[in-house]
Amino acid sequence: MGPDPAVAAVRAAVRPGLTGPVLVACSGGADSVALAAAVAFEAPRAGVAAGAVTVDHGLQPGSAERAGSTAELLRGLGLHPVVVRRVEVGTAGGPEAAARAARYAVLDRAAADHGARIALGHTRDDQAETVLLGLGRGSGPRSLAGMAPVRGHLWRPLLDLPRATTRAACTAQGLPVWDDPHNTDPAFTRVRLRHEVLPLLEDVLGGGVAGSLARTAALLREDCEALDALAAAVPDPADCTALAALPAAVRRRALRGWLLAHGVPDLAAVHLHAVEALVVHWRGQGRVDLPGGAGVVRASGRLALQGPPARRSTPPSEEPHP
Amino acid sequence: MGPDPAVAAVRAAVRPGLTGPVLVACSGGADSVALAAAVAFEAPRAGVAAGAVTVDHGLQPGSAERAGSTAELLRGLGLHPVVVRRVEVGTAGGPEAAARAARYAVLDRAAADHGARIALGHTRDDQAETVLLGLGRGSGPRSLAGMAPVRGHLWRPLLDLPRATTRAACTAQGLPVWDDPHNTDPAFTRVRLRHEVLPLLEDVLGGGVAGSLARTAALLREDCEALDALAAAVPDPADCTALAALPAAVRRRALRGWLLAHGVPDLAAVHLHAVEALVVHWRGQGRVDLPGGAGVVRASGRLALQGPPARRSTPPSEEPHP
Repeated sequence: MGPDPAVAAVRAAVRPGLTGPVLVACSGGADSVALAAAVAFEAPRAGVAAGAVTVDHGLQPGSAERAGSTAELLRGLGLHPVVVRRVEVGTAGGPEAAARAARYAVLDRAAADHGARIALGHTRDDQAETVLLGLGRGSGPRSLAGMAPVRGHLWRPLLDLPRATTRAACTAQGLPVWDDPHNTDPAFTRVRLRHEVLPLLEDVLGGGVAGSLARTAALLREDCEALDALAAAVPDPADCTALAALPAAVRRRALRGWLLAHGVPDLAAVHLHAVEALVVHWRGQGRVDLPGGAGVVRASGRLALQGPPARRSTPPSEEPHP
Repeated sequence: MGPDPAVAAVRAAVRPGLTGPVLVACSGGADSVALAAAVAFEAPRAGVAAGAVTVDHGLQPGSAERAGSTAELLRGLGLHPVVVRRVEVGTAGGPEAAARAARYAVLDRAAADHGARIALGHTRDDQAETVLLGLGRGSGPRSLAGMAPVRGHLWRPLLDLPRATTRAACTAQGLPVWDDPHNTDPAFTRVRLRHEVLPLLEDVLGGGVAGSLARTAALLREDCEALDALAAAVPDPADCTALAALPAAVRRRALRGWLLAHGVPDLAAVHLHAVEALVVHWRGQGRVDLPGGAGVVRASGRLALQGPPARRSTPPSEEPHP
């Protein structure tokens, strides 16, 4: 007799990606515990080393004890090493963003220290919530494209599985799971998307919405990859004649890349639009002021950056806590 | 003293597009009445001919009288000609889709008869609802890209204006508007999106959602246009070697275009994926069966279509009734 179907589904999801050392990021919640159990089962069969990282955010009473018992559970599954890291969560960008930034800093460090990929337990439902958050920002395809299955050293093998499957897998294996009270606190936007918006959308649109959002995210990611590659291949993104000949979707990405490469923080659509107007609606207009004090001018058919150069920035990420 | 700000906003939205004869599609509702009034005001100043079309769907008691009084109102605004057309609404695809199909057939005919563009009163809120409908389908970027401001002879000058502006413009000008009872009937998916989902999303995501959705749609439309153009330029979309070298987003569009051109109806993602596997995961697999009885095989490095060729089909549209 084979394993429970939910257990089999989680194992099947991790199997193809077990090609080298991996650390499972585990909060003690159902998603990451199911992931840890599946990796612990499959990794020895694939001949790869598998450990885990658990992060104590120090935000709730008893968080250190909980991190300790999660580590215990992970060791019991046979994962090694099991790393516990306490982080200091700042306040920049709000509590969710600050906790995420602190967590990813620890995971990045662990990946580098151990030469391992980090496996994250994000499910299809997390992906659907991420897409809806992106919709609300209106910043376009990139923010709708959700989380990538693989990005750098981050690996998300469960993006095609519903959250119900990870919970069922834990139940079937008798694994204790911790339900983070933050996951039901309506002060968090993501919690309200999960408990109010998605169920209503399911009702109104006739079901299957989380799957639809996740499929849409995957298609948008492909579109963005193709267009980003075209934009990155533009030989001289300051040359207005060459820029004007490009499709708008490629031109805008080339301009954004050029500005980022010159230390300008990621721009709102309105600013990018004004820079683009220097290229496509040129009528001798003056300098376009950008947030942070920099500006762009057009002279002799070329764009030039003026003003205080900031340090190179990267776009923010929007991953939930797995 | 200038006109009311809402009246000025609607007039400003129509002004740049008044470059030739136009017929306003008018249901008698606030959006299309505000549009008709703005076109009636601006067209003589732009030196272009402007008339109107009103469609009697025959679905509600008194619809003929209402079409007559709408025509009266339109004539009173100075539009000429004012065409009233009664249509027979079928049942294919459900009541909303059938009414839409009948309406667009009349509008297409009127455009051809009069050599005119058709102006449609869709607002930013209609666009937001269209994007959410597309999300629920999960069919990817194309369905999220919403309605185009200009497509063939269709012109939608109000896509950047909120619905509240068209209503305010009617009030300010003392124009009578008809509130279609269908617009509050929760049997219609679009009505529930408007009255339940969007207000909840506004609350959860902190406002501005309709604008965000509309901006997202505009960006996605640019992306799709760029990628569709790249796909259309693929010289031989049956050549597996050439297809395999393309970015996935371009390859999938090229395959879809090749199948549509050969009379295969628009495909669900799962079928397109199977055809794509013949190109990118080739391990000697057999014929891929498609809905409608056709199939695709790979032979000597080329794709070939087999089975009953259907007639050429076009993708469905999802525009609401303006």
